[in-house]
Amino acid sequence: MAVALNPAYEAIGKGFVQQYYALFDDPEQRPNLVNMYNAETSFMTFEGMQLQGAVKIMEKLTSLTFQKIIRQITAVDSQPMFDGGVLINVLGRLQADDDPPHAYSQIFVLKPLGNSFYCAHDIFRLNIHDS
Amino acid sequence: MAVALNPAYEAIGKGFVQQYYALFDDPEQRPNLVNMYNAETSFMTFEGMQLQGAVKIMEKLTSLTFQKIIRQITAVDSQPMFDGGVLINVLGRLQADDDPPHAYSQIFVLKPLGNSFYCAHDIFRLNIHDS
Repeated sequence: MAVALNPAYEAIGKGFVQQYYALFDDPEQRPNLVNMYNAETSFMTFEGMQLQGAVKIMEKLTSLTFQKIIRQITAVDSQPMFDGGVLINVLGRLQADDDPPHAYSQIFVLKPLGNSFYCAHDIFRLNIHDS
Repeated sequence: MAVALNPAYEAIGKGFVQQYYALFDDPEQRPNLVNMYNAETSFMTFEGMQLQGAVKIMEKLTSLTFQKIIRQITAVDSQPMFDGGVLINVLGRLQADDDPPHAYSQIFVLKPLGNSFYCAHDIFRLNIHDS
């Protein structure tokens, strides 16, 4: 096992979350999230629905039609991984258009790619306290 | 990158969660959780507190003094990882002794070890909808 913990995991986690949601929360920029995922290997589980590869993931994300998102992030916990990646847990609340606000949970696993990272794993659940 | 997705990831995730909480929720068995973690490399983030290695993790877990836990698991989402591991997201509610019930989130990353798995990453957050 190559030991390659990235000491900047905390800043990488926070930076990724900020960058990801800046794209996600702007309907015009949402399609650019495609660059965050690997064409074939990235996994997403969206409310229990399993998707693999950037195309299927983007089909799901661009099917979300809300225009306005108010997002409040309450916790970002990051851990370094021994392959140089970063595990990120995000907890927060979000309100889409005129819906009531919902608590949500999103987990990302970032993998190194050149000088940057891509999102290898993504698990999203809304309404986590009601279910 | 060796491609070694474990097709049984769903059953592995559910089985681990069941086994982990069976030990956690029984104060007499809780110390046996030490076998779930690697002595040096496992990471835990407990309510934002970062811990590394089975000894420090167990110091934290065995410092929890509640005797009775009522736990309700509302979602377990698992994904296979390309090193043969499994990423698990657990959402649920738990009530310790006479406390009110709290929503919680726990993420595990399992890594293969012989014919079994150990917990390489663990992130726990309570009260996720209040914060």
